[in-house]
Amino acid sequence: MAKPGRVSGFPEWLPEGQVVQQAVEDAARRVFRLHGFCGLETRAVEPLDQMLRKGEIDKEVYVLRRLHAQESEADSGLGLHFDLTVPFARYVLENAGRLEFPFKRYQIQKVWRGERPQEGRFREFTQADVDVVGRDTLPFHFEVEMAVVMSELLASLPMVPAATIQVNNRKLAEGFYRGVGADDPDAVLRVIDKLDKIGVDATERLLVDEAGLTTTAARSCLALAAIRTPDASFAEQVARLGVSNDLLDEGVRELAAVVEGANRERAGSVVADLRIARGLDYYTGTVYETLLAGHESVGSIASGGRYDSLASDGRQTYPGVGISLGVTRLVSVLLGHGLVTVSRAVPTVVLVAVVDEESRPASTAVADRLRRRGIACEVMPTADKFGRQIRYADRRGIPYVWFPDAAGDTVKDIRSGDQIAADPEVWCPPAEDLDPRVERALPTSDAPPRQEERS
Amino acid sequence: MAKPGRVSGFPEWLPEGQVVQQAVEDAARRVFRLHGFCGLETRAVEPLDQMLRKGEIDKEVYVLRRLHAQESEADSGLGLHFDLTVPFARYVLENAGRLEFPFKRYQIQKVWRGERPQEGRFREFTQADVDVVGRDTLPFHFEVEMAVVMSELLASLPMVPAATIQVNNRKLAEGFYRGVGADDPDAVLRVIDKLDKIGVDATERLLVDEAGLTTTAARSCLALAAIRTPDASFAEQVARLGVSNDLLDEGVRELAAVVEGANRERAGSVVADLRIARGLDYYTGTVYETLLAGHESVGSIASGGRYDSLASDGRQTYPGVGISLGVTRLVSVLLGHGLVTVSRAVPTVVLVAVVDEESRPASTAVADRLRRRGIACEVMPTADKFGRQIRYADRRGIPYVWFPDAAGDTVKDIRSGDQIAADPEVWCPPAEDLDPRVERALPTSDAPPRQEERS
Repeated sequence: MAKPGRVSGFPEWLPEGQVVQQAVEDAARRVFRLHGFCGLETRAVEPLDQMLRKGEIDKEVYVLRRLHAQESEADSGLGLHFDLTVPFARYVLENAGRLEFPFKRYQIQKVWRGERPQEGRFREFTQADVDVVGRDTLPFHFEVEMAVVMSELLASLPMVPAATIQVNNRKLAEGFYRGVGADDPDAVLRVIDKLDKIGVDATERLLVDEAGLTTTAARSCLALAAIRTPDASFAEQVARLGVSNDLLDEGVRELAAVVEGANRERAGSVVADLRIARGLDYYTGTVYETLLAGHESVGSIASGGRYDSLASDGRQTYPGVGISLGVTRLVSVLLGHGLVTVSRAVPTVVLVAVVDEESRPASTAVADRLRRRGIACEVMPTADKFGRQIRYADRRGIPYVWFPDAAGDTVKDIRSGDQIAADPEVWCPPAEDLDPRVERALPTSDAPPRQEERS
Repeated sequence: MAKPGRVSGFPEWLPEGQVVQQAVEDAARRVFRLHGFCGLETRAVEPLDQMLRKGEIDKEVYVLRRLHAQESEADSGLGLHFDLTVPFARYVLENAGRLEFPFKRYQIQKVWRGERPQEGRFREFTQADVDVVGRDTLPFHFEVEMAVVMSELLASLPMVPAATIQVNNRKLAEGFYRGVGADDPDAVLRVIDKLDKIGVDATERLLVDEAGLTTTAARSCLALAAIRTPDASFAEQVARLGVSNDLLDEGVRELAAVVEGANRERAGSVVADLRIARGLDYYTGTVYETLLAGHESVGSIASGGRYDSLASDGRQTYPGVGISLGVTRLVSVLLGHGLVTVSRAVPTVVLVAVVDEESRPASTAVADRLRRRGIACEVMPTADKFGRQIRYADRRGIPYVWFPDAAGDTVKDIRSGDQIAADPEVWCPPAEDLDPRVERALPTSDAPPRQEERS
């Protein structure tokens, strides 16, 4: 097999990086479960005709073909899912009769998009989604819970920089745009979505030229998008713009409720940011984005919103709200900028030394007894001199080496050099040594950013 | 969105089934880590030219194409991986300079094959693999450890029927075939691989017609394949067949060492079964298959073997040995035959009742305090009458309902009806209620097999 190359946009990590990704996924699972979301996994593929109903995204789908398929059936009609929301909506429709509503689920899986790769953008990446859907109705307070859940998750990861969840509301935006005379509020939203990229002047021109606004209306919309407050005081700033519309008022009330509700539970977790638009057109209420302090350029690492009509079978609708953590994007920032350290790449706590090959079964028996008590062990692969066996452990970051001895076993902490008598039925390592530790890296002003990402 | 249909061969489970799959994956991760295997994830795609070097499998690969790709680049040159061994070998070659050898890793991911679906065979399924690879050499004793690890894993799952790991050795088979005069031992192996499907008589004919054996030699090979012992006594039966070959002798010694070594660690875990062939041609030593008692027809649920030349960059080779649990196949048997029960589908231990919408923040605060102590909670979505709130919990299998009360909170076990005063900073449920329990179902002779599988 010739030396293989990497595939652009399909990142892989070294074992240390994988420990970081696993820590993020474990934390997500833990926090989601604490909030009562059940775990779900959907197939990786969806029928193309279902997926392509989401207009914007059709360029990016990977289509599947069996290698030896006949010409007449060149494509399977299946594509790899590009997010986890559309498959979840499909799953809910398919199984509605067997689910209890409101149905809360989390889903941690890979998704695929045939996009041009760039920093923070991949062709294959893992998302960790939580959503709740109701049947016909869904209480508003879940829009608060989503922000709280994501804030709790990010705060539980010590190596993640400060994250702020920015919240807006589609009703607020649409009502405002209608209030200033927009005929096509979606067109206004699509232009505002470009504000960060193209700047205020170009946005104002597009609002006039493409969205059909007057210059005065365009400037009002830009003034709205400039509002950002850590509390509900955005409402006064909106009021000062002098636009009157019922939908706007409803959106203002909802946004205030999310900001106040989430900050009551987790102070400082959420800000109102009236620039947030979110590209996907299925959102109908609250929308979320999340930026990492100092790493804003990589884009949002956790996004989502309320959707009222994504899942409907014609008779019933299943309104929902959800938020999605970009696991791969987050991990690529942590690894690529050296923000994280890992105490070791292997789960192994103890290397059991081997005196000679004849006595290997005795070493294996020690390992077996430690494992029964939850202590991860390896048995030394070869009966080398003990100095080499200790170096074997040291190179892997394994903290302890166990020496079986008919006269009484000993275990050595190879970091301190301390060696003590030990019984495999009794000895325990300190709790902090049981699993690899994932911690925030100390800032090193002179170190260049590490390129751990293997894409 | 119209009511969507299922996609044949791409199974999905209801939430209860997902709890079972998660229990299997968690157990795999736990046992693999206790043995010092580090977690790894590789991209879902591999370049086609790399993958197609494995002859047998090329029909089954799914090729990717971007939906809006130009004609000239119709295919991406990428296919979905059909197993986790070939990607692992590629990963090892790509990162050899950054890994410590022997390198032990586990990998739990989906794989895809464009096969015709049937019982136990899917187009998308999850595998849980463990492998260890060395640089240039790999000690034999890892071939014992693989059987022990898989046996430990299966024994740790109370709902899995008795599983026996059947072991054979390629050197034994090849040496024997050469010893009876076969020019092409691989051709003999391919025919023997069909024995279970086509029977003894047809196999004997094919051994003569296709593999070029004499009738006497063919009968010897069939006699070899009929040998099955729970210990190393197979060696005497092989000797009685009167075939002499050095490679055969080496294979007999290795197989005896695996059977004796694994059964010393876990009595009865392994049998020598000289019929086991394994289709893939990269195995060079020990091979493993695993049948579930009473469900043999579904095929092996855990298979693997020793491979000496799968990963080589021309200068160095990376011999390895591994075994792969077919998670989806195992779960489909457990669900499809009603072998398993789940205490509840949701992680929620406590439903916190809501007195009225005004006091929802008080209920949320109780939930927050319980969650900080690791107790999964939901807050009642709507302030219904308490009877309805209790039914909400009951329908989901949530065992406890918490009633906030300014005069003193209480918590009710809705199974027993017991209601006691409780403080959210102190109260704990019994440990067995903390997570959904996955248990062996009691046998019900008159119940038809359940069709939980959603393919």
